[in-house]
Amino acid sequence: MGRREIGVGVIGLGWMGRLHARSYRAVPERWPELGVAPRLVLAADPVSENREAAVDHLGFAAATENWRAVVADPRVDVVSICVPNHLHREVALAAVEAGTPFWVEKPMGRDAADAAEIARAVAARGLVTAVGFNYRNVPAVVHARELIRSGRLGRVTNLRVWLLADYAASPDAPLTWRYRRETAGSGVIGDLLCHGADLAQLLAGRVAAVSALTGTVVTERPVPTRAGVGHAGHEVGEERGPVENEDHAAALLRFESGAVGTLECSRVARGPRAEYVVEVYGTGGSLRWNFERMGELQVDAGEGGYTTLLAGPGFGDYARFQPSAGTSMGFDDLKTIEAARFLRSVLTGEQHVPSAADGWSAAEVGAAVAASAEDGRWHDVLPVPGTTFAQ
Amino acid sequence: MGRREIGVGVIGLGWMGRLHARSYRAVPERWPELGVAPRLVLAADPVSENREAAVDHLGFAAATENWRAVVADPRVDVVSICVPNHLHREVALAAVEAGTPFWVEKPMGRDAADAAEIARAVAARGLVTAVGFNYRNVPAVVHARELIRSGRLGRVTNLRVWLLADYAASPDAPLTWRYRRETAGSGVIGDLLCHGADLAQLLAGRVAAVSALTGTVVTERPVPTRAGVGHAGHEVGEERGPVENEDHAAALLRFESGAVGTLECSRVARGPRAEYVVEVYGTGGSLRWNFERMGELQVDAGEGGYTTLLAGPGFGDYARFQPSAGTSMGFDDLKTIEAARFLRSVLTGEQHVPSAADGWSAAEVGAAVAASAEDGRWHDVLPVPGTTFAQ
Amino acid sequence: MGRREIGVGVIGLGWMGRLHARSYRAVPERWPELGVAPRLVLAADPVSENREAAVDHLGFAAATENWRAVVADPRVDVVSICVPNHLHREVALAAVEAGTPFWVEKPMGRDAADAAEIARAVAARGLVTAVGFNYRNVPAVVHARELIRSGRLGRVTNLRVWLLADYAASPDAPLTWRYRRETAGSGVIGDLLCHGADLAQLLAGRVAAVSALTGTVVTERPVPTRAGVGHAGHEVGEERGPVENEDHAAALLRFESGAVGTLECSRVARGPRAEYVVEVYGTGGSLRWNFERMGELQVDAGEGGYTTLLAGPGFGDYARFQPSAGTSMGFDDLKTIEAARFLRSVLTGEQHVPSAADGWSAAEVGAAVAASAEDGRWHDVLPVPGTTFAQ
Amino acid sequence: MGRREIGVGVIGLGWMGRLHARSYRAVPERWPELGVAPRLVLAADPVSENREAAVDHLGFAAATENWRAVVADPRVDVVSICVPNHLHREVALAAVEAGTPFWVEKPMGRDAADAAEIARAVAARGLVTAVGFNYRNVPAVVHARELIRSGRLGRVTNLRVWLLADYAASPDAPLTWRYRRETAGSGVIGDLLCHGADLAQLLAGRVAAVSALTGTVVTERPVPTRAGVGHAGHEVGEERGPVENEDHAAALLRFESGAVGTLECSRVARGPRAEYVVEVYGTGGSLRWNFERMGELQVDAGEGGYTTLLAGPGFGDYARFQPSAGTSMGFDDLKTIEAARFLRSVLTGEQHVPSAADGWSAAEVGAAVAASAEDGRWHDVLPVPGTTFAQ
Repeated sequence: MGRREIGVGVIGLGWMGRLHARSYRAVPERWPELGVAPRLVLAADPVSENREAAVDHLGFAAATENWRAVVADPRVDVVSICVPNHLHREVALAAVEAGTPFWVEKPMGRDAADAAEIARAVAARGLVTAVGFNYRNVPAVVHARELIRSGRLGRVTNLRVWLLADYAASPDAPLTWRYRRETAGSGVIGDLLCHGADLAQLLAGRVAAVSALTGTVVTERPVPTRAGVGHAGHEVGEERGPVENEDHAAALLRFESGAVGTLECSRVARGPRAEYVVEVYGTGGSLRWNFERMGELQVDAGEGGYTTLLAGPGFGDYARFQPSAGTSMGFDDLKTIEAARFLRSVLTGEQHVPSAADGWSAAEVGAAVAASAEDGRWHDVLPVPGTTFAQ
Repeated sequence: MGRREIGVGVIGLGWMGRLHARSYRAVPERWPELGVAPRLVLAADPVSENREAAVDHLGFAAATENWRAVVADPRVDVVSICVPNHLHREVALAAVEAGTPFWVEKPMGRDAADAAEIARAVAARGLVTAVGFNYRNVPAVVHARELIRSGRLGRVTNLRVWLLADYAASPDAPLTWRYRRETAGSGVIGDLLCHGADLAQLLAGRVAAVSALTGTVVTERPVPTRAGVGHAGHEVGEERGPVENEDHAAALLRFESGAVGTLECSRVARGPRAEYVVEVYGTGGSLRWNFERMGELQVDAGEGGYTTLLAGPGFGDYARFQPSAGTSMGFDDLKTIEAARFLRSVLTGEQHVPSAADGWSAAEVGAAVAASAEDGRWHDVLPVPGTTFAQ
Repeated sequence: MGRREIGVGVIGLGWMGRLHARSYRAVPERWPELGVAPRLVLAADPVSENREAAVDHLGFAAATENWRAVVADPRVDVVSICVPNHLHREVALAAVEAGTPFWVEKPMGRDAADAAEIARAVAARGLVTAVGFNYRNVPAVVHARELIRSGRLGRVTNLRVWLLADYAASPDAPLTWRYRRETAGSGVIGDLLCHGADLAQLLAGRVAAVSALTGTVVTERPVPTRAGVGHAGHEVGEERGPVENEDHAAALLRFESGAVGTLECSRVARGPRAEYVVEVYGTGGSLRWNFERMGELQVDAGEGGYTTLLAGPGFGDYARFQPSAGTSMGFDDLKTIEAARFLRSVLTGEQHVPSAADGWSAAEVGAAVAASAEDGRWHDVLPVPGTTFAQ
Repeated sequence: MGRREIGVGVIGLGWMGRLHARSYRAVPERWPELGVAPRLVLAADPVSENREAAVDHLGFAAATENWRAVVADPRVDVVSICVPNHLHREVALAAVEAGTPFWVEKPMGRDAADAAEIARAVAARGLVTAVGFNYRNVPAVVHARELIRSGRLGRVTNLRVWLLADYAASPDAPLTWRYRRETAGSGVIGDLLCHGADLAQLLAGRVAAVSALTGTVVTERPVPTRAGVGHAGHEVGEERGPVENEDHAAALLRFESGAVGTLECSRVARGPRAEYVVEVYGTGGSLRWNFERMGELQVDAGEGGYTTLLAGPGFGDYARFQPSAGTSMGFDDLKTIEAARFLRSVLTGEQHVPSAADGWSAAEVGAAVAASAEDGRWHDVLPVPGTTFAQ
């Protein structure tokens, strides 16, 4: 059939690793013109059930406990990194060492230092990469960006971005690796703010400086006596331990363009579930998008009020998934798009997806937020070379 | 691995046939406890590109022009029927003849006569079947039904159901098979009202009688000079021909339970895109659901206003697809659930999914609507044996 | 000052009578160009506290127990009729007899016979009148009508109108005059459906025929042992008595124009509070309005989605009340507009406000709904001469 | 009748002055238990048409060009100050001098210095006062505050407040006094941010420190060649002049309580019309209110999603205006409540309405915002004695 086979390795088989695997598999039908045939060569995970599922259900030829075996396998052309944050750096650097393009979940590292090290190594080696800023692929977001770039909203003057989730709202949620500096680095900054920073930069260009505050609302949580997976399945006892990173952050933004903005995120909000909102205001109009209503885009470009557009054919890659407007795409579809853009990048050698440089750039925004929250001053954000958000 | 293999044939490889194929494939990972391993044995379609895609991208072992070859293939344990409406009857009866459980898209036939013939043959043979009433699988709808059954809304007194779409709103949309009696049977009654009738019966029990009106807003359409696929890709000339079936229907409903309701549908609405709404009122509260915001359920069970619940774990099969509330499932996921329930039915011999009897029942509601619109009288709806909606 | 004084009498000083009084008083400042100076001459009410309030707070020169004194008073140029439904006919006919223009609350009588008698007497005498169809004055509704008349929505093909309220939802609400045939006539048909019928006719022309059903959800209520006012303040004992009129009605509509529609209303809905919705669909677009968000109008006239317009200057009489869009007008302002249009009618002798003929016309729709619900057939709606809705 | 007469003077008869006049007049009927009878003694305005309207339509006994005559009139017991910002100080100090309680519109002065001078004079004289923070009177806001105080939302951890308006969005809007330092002082800080600051403090206590940025989007506007009224009626020529104050401001907030927040406002937003939003998050839930939907309150206090409550009896003073939930109160009703609370304060000598101290406190927040925007540092907000927001 003349399609190019690409050997895939996936490291980490939690929710996200499985989603990567499915996403690779979905690419050929949705993007037939790519002529690509991903083969799921090898998966790595410490949990035996996950390894069995990889082979039984996900279509992997084999699975291993040892992630280094994935990177070392000569049949593996690309690798997905879906392990906890504190392992991203080590795995990513090994992939760079092996010359293997990788797709890493966000945040790219625990902190800006991790991210910088990864991105510099990638740049030195000249690899294509992907970072899991999946919201870039939402058809409504793609359409928003096109509207902005077309000038329909005039000159962008300010943005309002917030990401409010409730996954850590309960004080009885156990003290997992997410809440410790060593394993997670930052808290909600790495979890959510990095997405907001990436979207902000995608829509309005580079963030140049920030003034911020952060806070921890739930200061102690029960220590797990037996670990579960993700947020679920842990057993806890009486003992409580300290939460070491931030639950909430809010920042004022100054963009390089002269635009300004606000960026806020929380993992302990009660009410919103996954309210990730971007609002962009220009001299000619404004638009609004909310992840909780992923397929809707509110636009006022002179209509005298917001028009609710439902994503449909003509909005990003929507037409590859659904035939007509008003039919829901799923979150998982965003990852299929990400996989396709990553594979296209691998095939062409050009970066068609958020890169390690974008991951680093978002981490620098996060670092500036943390630093400003510490000393109460405006902090410049380190400019990062090679980002794709402004392309 | 000890999983039971099930050979799958799919007849018709348009949007819906491809979706059936993907849905079968997705079942093992999402429903590992079923222990089922669908194998895509054979696909049938008259278009060569579709047959190639079936083998290249969808995972079929082979493809054929001849749908009878699918039914005849001894390796095919179940068959999906995704051809235009007027072929449903013939294919379904052939499957019954072969003793092969089938999953047929809605409407099950062009009219109640088609549907009755299919359902009776199925019953005589004792087969399990599935009819594509996919909205039953929406987690918010499942939750709605549980709320109703739990008594939280008190006694159900009335329903309001409407399905407003714009797919035929343009008078320049070509005169495809959908608009002709011979090939489509009814118009929006078969396309949308059957979904509404099924949901209404799922939530409030059997519809006993209707008073209705119907109308055709766009009475002529351009005749295609070269056919495309679905709504797209047709070429048309100057000639226009008559639309033979209804664009719009509205009905008053009397349920067997004593509840009453309204049911309205249109394929020529301008404004809504796919606004499929169910509202259920009871003596203790009410709820509302809209397909355009598939993951939301509005409930007032004494809170003094509607609470917007976002589907999450605990709502139907949500947890098999996404880890936490507020993350969008896709329309395609509804078909995966349908596939899983169909396969479970095949494995157990018990009907876990809307059956041919449900397809027939919805068709009888449609037939009563059409008859009432004709003569201006209330029409009783023929009771159908063996439906699953009230189970 | 050269302004024309108009002597005002108000009969009935409940919530609505007081509102009439305030509305007259508010006209001169809001409509200075009318050059009118209403004087509150005399109010009538059986309750002494109401009579005192009329003089102390509302600005009446005097108050009386005897409504006939109001009609007989030579200083009274116009009279407002705000008594319970069963008294409308008698008071209105007395006003006609006296040659006094009147403003009567809806429903104009207990039934179509009452309404016809009033309207015919008015016509014979050549009086201007006003009927309290206040929703006509909502700026968003005025704007909606202008959009429709301008052709922006193309040819109107169907309407959806519903009025869902919860004021009678509790089965413990006492059995007041509203629930008895003799005093109220119909139930929700007179209370809410008449508003819906008037709006439907305002926006799409005359309703020609209906098919309908009605029902009583709460069949018994506690008998008051001591009467309160309106819905509040009653004392009840153990005894329960039968509700004699309908809680709910739903109808299919055929308009004279060929458009069709649905019309539904309930006083026992749980969830909506005062959800009075009009949706109008045309071949070029559609619009939606909901009383619960009185200042919003949803319009899709080719924008590809609904635009939420907030009423502002340019929408009906908005600019007389608020300076800029987004600021709430109140329900009471609708009555000030009604008063102004009534007074303008009185001054000019031309009918600028819904007339007794409109009140009769809405009553005929209600009568046809009741009759159809009785015998299950479509009923033609008696055409009424002299209505203003289509002007 | 034994009611206490209060002589009222109103200075400035633009939109707001007229509204004050109507509001006083409306008090006796809505608050009969106050036993108060406001008499409109004297109005002052430089425009002759306004003076005529005061006497002809608003009910003033007389009108004058000279505002000092109002303050000096012995029959004037209370005075309303509705002139442009730069005159507030002079008029207010004159009222203090005369020992006359006053109701002044916001912002209380051009800047914190003006405000401080007024508030200190008031305190020295021991007068009751009112400042036009009308949003405090919104029934949904009153209910919100009660929910917070009841503990239903747990400990308040953060607020999000924004006020986005479009009144200055057009670059062709003329360069009126609003855009000049000398006459207006600040721009949107005085216009809108002061409302946001007051609401924030009402709901979460004193703001202790801010970090902020401000900006001017439209830097030049056409110079009026002939002045109109408010935003309308001006004539302009070719000449353009500089806008001297800010169009937009955004701030991070630290409350005395430890809560944090964001506060943003714009007068040049395109899309929102009068989107004044308060969101309050606590450890037990959250709530949201938006002025564009004044009668709605979104609350999640453990329901698993936001419940939309429609204001009704039981929400603040709603029941004085409308009989049942879902019926719109108007903006003007907020001023009637303000008038009533002011008059009650005058009668009792106790402060029942936002005071000059509250006006000063909001001005201090604005001053800190401006200062922080200037030097990029966090600024403490001067604590103000005698505020009512935390009572």
